[in-house]
Amino acid sequence: MAKARIRFGISVRQRRNQLEWSQEELAERSGLHRTYIGQVERGVRNISIDNMEALAEALMLPLAELLRSDS
Amino acid sequence: MAKARIRFGISVRQRRNQLEWSQEELAERSGLHRTYIGQVERGVRNISIDNMEALAEALMLPLAELLRSDS
Repeated sequence: MAKARIRFGISVRQRRNQLEWSQEELAERSGLHRTYIGQVERGVRNISIDNMEALAEALMLPLAELLRSDS
Repeated sequence: MAKARIRFGISVRQRRNQLEWSQEELAERSGLHRTYIGQVERGVRNISIDNMEALAEALMLPLAELLRSDS
């Protein structure tokens, strides 16, 4: 199974695309920086649980949903 | 709903108790420090996704399971 940060990044990107939001829009809604969002989506950032929660809330999904190993 | 770090800490402690492991034993199995485990269980640490994954693997549960909002 892919590392959690890879799965999380893919899930964030999929959900953002589903909502038809740019990285810039997700950045504004989550209070995080656009370049940071890009790094999280590529799995290159060891994101903290507080920032994961901010993204989940902005994306209107439970955090657990963004970490499911079967998605 | 409690913050994610609070829910995660409670889930880690519940699972550790279910396995009848001390914090010391979980520390050894996860490669993290015992005092750090205690801080994570109390929700005072903004833990990273890599360390969350190390704990989930040591506890033999999917990471998403440790973040469920209905547990």
